[in-house]
Amino acid sequence: MKTLRVALCQINPTVGDLDGNVHKILSFMNRAQEHEPDIIAFPELSLTGYPPEDLLLKPSFIRDNLDALRTIQDATGSSVVIAGFVDRKEDIFNAAAVMRDKELIDVYHKAYLPNYGVFDESRYFRAGRRMPLYTIGGITFSISICEDIWYPEGLVSSHTKGGADLMISINSSPYHAGKSDLRQKMVSTRAFDNGIFIAYLNSVGGQDELVFDGGSFIVDQNGRLAASARQFSEDLLVADLDLESVFTKRLHQPRRRKLPVADTAANEMITAAQQCRHKNTKLDSSAPAGILEREEEMFSALVLGTRDYVHKNGFKKVCIGLSGGVDSALVVAIAAEAVGPDNVTTVFMPSSFTSEESAKDSYQLAKNMGVEIIELPISRLFDLYLQELKPVFDDLPFNTAEENLQARIRGNMLMALSNKFGWMVLTTGNKSEMSVGYATLYGDMAGGFAVIKDIPKTDVYRISDWYNRTRRDRVIPENILRKAPTAELREGQKDTDSLPPYDMLDPLLKAYIEEDRDMKYLLDCGLSEEETKRVIRMVDTSEYKRRQSPPGIKITERAFGRDRRFPITNRYRKWL
Amino acid sequence: MKTLRVALCQINPTVGDLDGNVHKILSFMNRAQEHEPDIIAFPELSLTGYPPEDLLLKPSFIRDNLDALRTIQDATGSSVVIAGFVDRKEDIFNAAAVMRDKELIDVYHKAYLPNYGVFDESRYFRAGRRMPLYTIGGITFSISICEDIWYPEGLVSSHTKGGADLMISINSSPYHAGKSDLRQKMVSTRAFDNGIFIAYLNSVGGQDELVFDGGSFIVDQNGRLAASARQFSEDLLVADLDLESVFTKRLHQPRRRKLPVADTAANEMITAAQQCRHKNTKLDSSAPAGILEREEEMFSALVLGTRDYVHKNGFKKVCIGLSGGVDSALVVAIAAEAVGPDNVTTVFMPSSFTSEESAKDSYQLAKNMGVEIIELPISRLFDLYLQELKPVFDDLPFNTAEENLQARIRGNMLMALSNKFGWMVLTTGNKSEMSVGYATLYGDMAGGFAVIKDIPKTDVYRISDWYNRTRRDRVIPENILRKAPTAELREGQKDTDSLPPYDMLDPLLKAYIEEDRDMKYLLDCGLSEEETKRVIRMVDTSEYKRRQSPPGIKITERAFGRDRRFPITNRYRKWL
Repeated sequence: MKTLRVALCQINPTVGDLDGNVHKILSFMNRAQEHEPDIIAFPELSLTGYPPEDLLLKPSFIRDNLDALRTIQDATGSSVVIAGFVDRKEDIFNAAAVMRDKELIDVYHKAYLPNYGVFDESRYFRAGRRMPLYTIGGITFSISICEDIWYPEGLVSSHTKGGADLMISINSSPYHAGKSDLRQKMVSTRAFDNGIFIAYLNSVGGQDELVFDGGSFIVDQNGRLAASARQFSEDLLVADLDLESVFTKRLHQPRRRKLPVADTAANEMITAAQQCRHKNTKLDSSAPAGILEREEEMFSALVLGTRDYVHKNGFKKVCIGLSGGVDSALVVAIAAEAVGPDNVTTVFMPSSFTSEESAKDSYQLAKNMGVEIIELPISRLFDLYLQELKPVFDDLPFNTAEENLQARIRGNMLMALSNKFGWMVLTTGNKSEMSVGYATLYGDMAGGFAVIKDIPKTDVYRISDWYNRTRRDRVIPENILRKAPTAELREGQKDTDSLPPYDMLDPLLKAYIEEDRDMKYLLDCGLSEEETKRVIRMVDTSEYKRRQSPPGIKITERAFGRDRRFPITNRYRKWL
Repeated sequence: MKTLRVALCQINPTVGDLDGNVHKILSFMNRAQEHEPDIIAFPELSLTGYPPEDLLLKPSFIRDNLDALRTIQDATGSSVVIAGFVDRKEDIFNAAAVMRDKELIDVYHKAYLPNYGVFDESRYFRAGRRMPLYTIGGITFSISICEDIWYPEGLVSSHTKGGADLMISINSSPYHAGKSDLRQKMVSTRAFDNGIFIAYLNSVGGQDELVFDGGSFIVDQNGRLAASARQFSEDLLVADLDLESVFTKRLHQPRRRKLPVADTAANEMITAAQQCRHKNTKLDSSAPAGILEREEEMFSALVLGTRDYVHKNGFKKVCIGLSGGVDSALVVAIAAEAVGPDNVTTVFMPSSFTSEESAKDSYQLAKNMGVEIIELPISRLFDLYLQELKPVFDDLPFNTAEENLQARIRGNMLMALSNKFGWMVLTTGNKSEMSVGYATLYGDMAGGFAVIKDIPKTDVYRISDWYNRTRRDRVIPENILRKAPTAELREGQKDTDSLPPYDMLDPLLKAYIEEDRDMKYLLDCGLSEEETKRVIRMVDTSEYKRRQSPPGIKITERAFGRDRRFPITNRYRKWL
């Protein structure tokens, strides 16, 4: 029987950390070798981390990455090892090395370079033109790298025509909500269309704005899931693939095929693959991997992105300003999960506009979450600022100057704690606020990482509800979820004084920011024409604030930052 | 005789301002038409402004740009009009429309798309594949767009082989110091190599980080400058080209040609072209345009970039924190030139560490420059912060927490003035500081535009010296240029306490940041190995600060921002 044992090493590399990544690869290689697999695979650019950005323009970096590959190569044995690295020929290539018995057998160069959304690969790499096939004991397999597999007329069909039974697809595919489902469907269709096994290996971990969500999987020649790894954590997936069935399927292949509904054999294979995995590896959880529900998936991405940003940048502890609102509450929950409650300090900074309710809710939150809370009042400082500014401000009416001043005093306090104790400040603004500029630059926007900047307010509530539903300990106080949102920067202020209700605002923002919809569509989102245009103007004129905001985790299909690149100087208002 | 009259309209469009840009194009078209030229040309993407970035992903924007083109087309008469716009076919193209008598005769699609440095054109455009030639009264010409002309084996030689006498190259070519000289040399060589006239038209103006420096010019078939427009301001260049000489040259073309030294005929042509320009156009200066000296060129770029960022974003007035040092002094000089001294407010914010000398220099500067000065002391606020933080800070020693606090109080003051009076805050940090992170996030880095963030400290001095040499009024007080730089954030502080002397530091920074040199080269820059590595570590670990800094004007070959894209999370320290 034609079977092949494949080990997919779903690792979390760090950009630039060549030694650390080599160490991690060798350690997974050793673990995988205990299973005596035919093939051991590592993700796209696993040697350098992804994306290395302009590090790729440094000749020394390319050279050191080649040295690192040599170290991996020298450690290979009888299993074929596939690993992502940067190849250097007449140009540089996003490449996969194929190694065995200390030999570099071949190098595959990524053929399709993504240069949209968060991707800039044409800035760095030349596209490959070879599509090699490899054979192990009568079994033919091919390699693709990430983008390669997204084109229906791309590599998969050529490889199949060339006789491949299996494609190993190595990826560093950034997360957005719902993407793992999309990926599985697409790869499954690709496998079914071509009658080929596909082993889809993704990396895992946070890198600045991006989270790689893991969730590697294998589909069979009928497009059915044969085995899968966990999302959001490192994993080693070992599976035995019955490739005889590929040949059988092709023999009986009709001209038009229909997608089958279910198959017992495939289910048996999932079980076999999982048994294999759990027998030989020591992992925290033994629950079978699958696609998480939407809120859990987003929360997990936020936790992983935050943990990796904090730790990979050499920080241990974080601090968070508490307002008594739901945004800071959710960020505390994420941080407690990411770095542990002992490493989270919350700071409550009341002014004369702060309500008793906010104080009560903040203290209750800190207590529930088991995190430290410090109180630093800002009223006296605010009064002194006004006094010092009086000769210039004269008797001009209270406006955003005074509102922002309060937020900026709080920003200063948090940064002073950061500078004194080495804590990273996490900011708490959500995507709805970031979109319309309902945030103070150098105030509540001051910090190292903007955890939920890509989560619309309505999703902040949804995730918080899910969080409370699934926890017994560490819940967010119910009152925080029920009360009306307020910035408390002037007397009796409510968010709805300045903004439409969030359940009206968020669909409009999604249509405008993520989908580039035209005015006709935007007007159908439910707000009046005047309100719709006001919101859009607010989005357009807030680009300067977003440009100075800390990085945060991409969660939606189109995040601010490297994903949506708008000019600050932009007078496109023709349609408004 | 084969002659052709060409009008190059060196305009300053605004990104997204389709109506405004159309208005400007029509107004230049009218002015040009008074000369009855054969060809009137406008720069690359002059309808949309350059670079429009992700506006290009909006279908409505593409549609509105096509409508705008129609308006231009309907206004054309007997002159051929060439204008840059976004064409929409099966994809979008960076395109040039060729129009006459209200007809769209043809559209040329840019063939070479830059996707490096500050450019992301592969993100948006498909590359063109056609290389059309056009004929007017027996004269053949071709069109190229920006990048097209930079490849020796590219369009120019094909066009020449096809029989073109003249190439019209339309550009939006961003400035860096020395680039205009490089451009003229390259285009001149291209013209000489192929025996063709080249009319090189550039746009002018500031767009976020970029400055387009104008300086359009025409070279003849011998590579000699035939006519040129001014740098850093709008201009209309009309010239009569003797294209008979192209044919003559080609007839007598030897196999290996040598670049000629001088030629009377060409000088006569320059004169003729200039006369033509000055006879019919009303421009501020009548000095013949040429390449400026390095300091003047940089100063002019800074002035234009600042003026356009302030005005195109709807601001009139700016405010600047004064320290008494050379950086803020130069920024005041730039701002006074850019928006007028009446629109500049300076703010002096002394602490207990501020010297009498700094106060004296600041007031003298404001007086010399004719700008308003406000004094807002920060000592009482600083003391109150320390008092409020005392329960947390306890008796921990004075460190960067207290230093940064002072800078952040000043940042708050400036932002309060900005919010109250609608002034844009200009920050004053230079490239040396930005490189090593010798700046306070939300402190002196707080503001809308970082004017000199791409000017190394040694160039700050050079430009200031040049400025003082060439001015009788509005000079920078000599003492500011002579004294040792200090941040005055603690007792007796000098920059050299933390940093190597700037004349040692700047060459190292340039080699590392702009040139990606290896360690061997960096060690030759003159600092000890320990100091060299310390500086590099400072650069690497300051990326998080730079990511939150305001935009500033690209002046060097490689600026921070869209030009140098480094990950924040980056553990590449292998070589340190």
